[in-house]
Amino acid sequence: MNLLTHEGVLSARAVLEKVAHRTPTFTSRTLDERLGTQIVFKGEHLQRAGAFKFRGAYHALSRLTAEQRRRGVVTFSSGNHASGLALAGKLLGVPVTVVMPEGTLPLKRTATLGYGAEVVPCKNEEREAVGARLAAERGLSIIPPYDHDAVIAGQGTAALELIEDAGPFDLLITPLGGGGLLAGTCLAAHPEGAGAGATEIWGVEPETGDDGARSLAAGAVVVLDRAPDTIADGLRTRFVGQRNFPILKEHVTGVATVTDEEIVRALAWLWIRLKLFVEPSAAVGLAALIAGKVDARGKRTGIILSGGNANPLAVARRIDSLPAGAW
Amino acid sequence: MNLLTHEGVLSARAVLEKVAHRTPTFTSRTLDERLGTQIVFKGEHLQRAGAFKFRGAYHALSRLTAEQRRRGVVTFSSGNHASGLALAGKLLGVPVTVVMPEGTLPLKRTATLGYGAEVVPCKNEEREAVGARLAAERGLSIIPPYDHDAVIAGQGTAALELIEDAGPFDLLITPLGGGGLLAGTCLAAHPEGAGAGATEIWGVEPETGDDGARSLAAGAVVVLDRAPDTIADGLRTRFVGQRNFPILKEHVTGVATVTDEEIVRALAWLWIRLKLFVEPSAAVGLAALIAGKVDARGKRTGIILSGGNANPLAVARRIDSLPAGAW
Repeated sequence: MNLLTHEGVLSARAVLEKVAHRTPTFTSRTLDERLGTQIVFKGEHLQRAGAFKFRGAYHALSRLTAEQRRRGVVTFSSGNHASGLALAGKLLGVPVTVVMPEGTLPLKRTATLGYGAEVVPCKNEEREAVGARLAAERGLSIIPPYDHDAVIAGQGTAALELIEDAGPFDLLITPLGGGGLLAGTCLAAHPEGAGAGATEIWGVEPETGDDGARSLAAGAVVVLDRAPDTIADGLRTRFVGQRNFPILKEHVTGVATVTDEEIVRALAWLWIRLKLFVEPSAAVGLAALIAGKVDARGKRTGIILSGGNANPLAVARRIDSLPAGAW
Repeated sequence: MNLLTHEGVLSARAVLEKVAHRTPTFTSRTLDERLGTQIVFKGEHLQRAGAFKFRGAYHALSRLTAEQRRRGVVTFSSGNHASGLALAGKLLGVPVTVVMPEGTLPLKRTATLGYGAEVVPCKNEEREAVGARLAAERGLSIIPPYDHDAVIAGQGTAALELIEDAGPFDLLITPLGGGGLLAGTCLAAHPEGAGAGATEIWGVEPETGDDGARSLAAGAVVVLDRAPDTIADGLRTRFVGQRNFPILKEHVTGVATVTDEEIVRALAWLWIRLKLFVEPSAAVGLAALIAGKVDARGKRTGIILSGGNANPLAVARRIDSLPAGAW
């Protein structure tokens, strides 16, 4: 079957429903009043291994043959896909090797090792190449972090649950790195097919890594020279996936970009007011609303909080250094 | 009716069920494996105004006469009762005055002001006296933070929901400051009456403020000379309430004490692993389990996470300064 369809997401859900958490949703009266909208947050920071990435990773492993599972898999990831895949491999008895770029958060590295994966360090720009070489040498299947049918369909199950539990929505917003979560959300939210849905769908990415917005404007995938510098460490991707991009082009209303300070303001709301311990990448959707970069006024808005693997001190320091009254 | 009964808690629930959040519960496989128990956390950090205190405060105001509501109320509180009462007053149109001790977290003070209450500063040891004087001068009803029938019955609704949603439990654990939450939990968990319940109930307090443990040992309320110095700013009480103590004496299995370092270890688990943004006072229950001070092995254990009004930087610094491998 073609997994890059609404039916593909439903089929991923059938695999995931006994193993992934059906994460809870959260609302805030104060935030709704402030922004003139009605937001429902999907709490994927409470997903297993602390991020939505477990969904796509487990779904991808579940579709391998017995022989492929025996040989094992390799991936390249700056964090949450790595630990999600490591946990999925542990649960399914599949050996996992992770090519991990320098600068990965120590806590994400520790989690990956904790689930029993082998970690191979590399430079950020070399990660795909090192992964491909290891795959060839060791006969491993490559499970890339986003440019992969089963991964995309798996990530779509988060939006599917959100819509079932609290929909319908006028507007859905997800972080945009490589486009796995955003493409999956498109497939989940528009069952009628390309662009036919009544739901607006936006991606949000860091201003320093605006390849997604530029790619949509150009009509083709734009590749950044180097990984963007941003507090949103889960969104330091250089390009949107080849499988992901056509889906975004067909379904997505727009891509907004946010600055690190805007992300930190949203983090202050999410931690201090909403009491949700999310990581910086998870805050970009709310950041775009607060900064007025996506117009949510009068709309029922669903926002996926993508993960919770944050370094408390690093985030707390940034929140503390916000100008008084900034949020 | 006598509110200090199981029926009193049910009657509080009838008042609260349309206005308080039915907060979600959380579990952690990793923690359960580590501790050899099955824990269900009740997330009162997600309650309105960020703590269980809203329950008792709203219930107390709802039972005032129209004339009492018109005149207004006064309380003395280091934080969460103040903001809970301020929000309840705003919702019910009751003017609220808060006598607030020095050293109250700025964010708790700001929240109280934000809900429209008047704040009168005082020294910690004088708070009851200043409250009583204001009540006499202005004709205000005193709504103390814990030593009050309607407050105790209101706080019991948190455990009632926890038991309904995830019970039955072998063991229930709550923080112990003045005894409002713990006494309410006793009434909720032992419908058969004093001590007849099958559920063990433990309170946990900071080691520096062990008046609860000493009171139970002595069979009478022990009063500390001054407010205890502890990171758990919600538990800086000097004594258990006169209405609370007899309930604790009849129902409680024991009171454990934990050090600040044990509290910080539990906070590391709750923030970094469970992604729950709770305040230090909320972490004492888990701290007691991790430190081996309450034996939960093999038991179905319910723990009430009392609130989420934390200063991120203060907590993150303490977590960061834990010795490596401390949690």
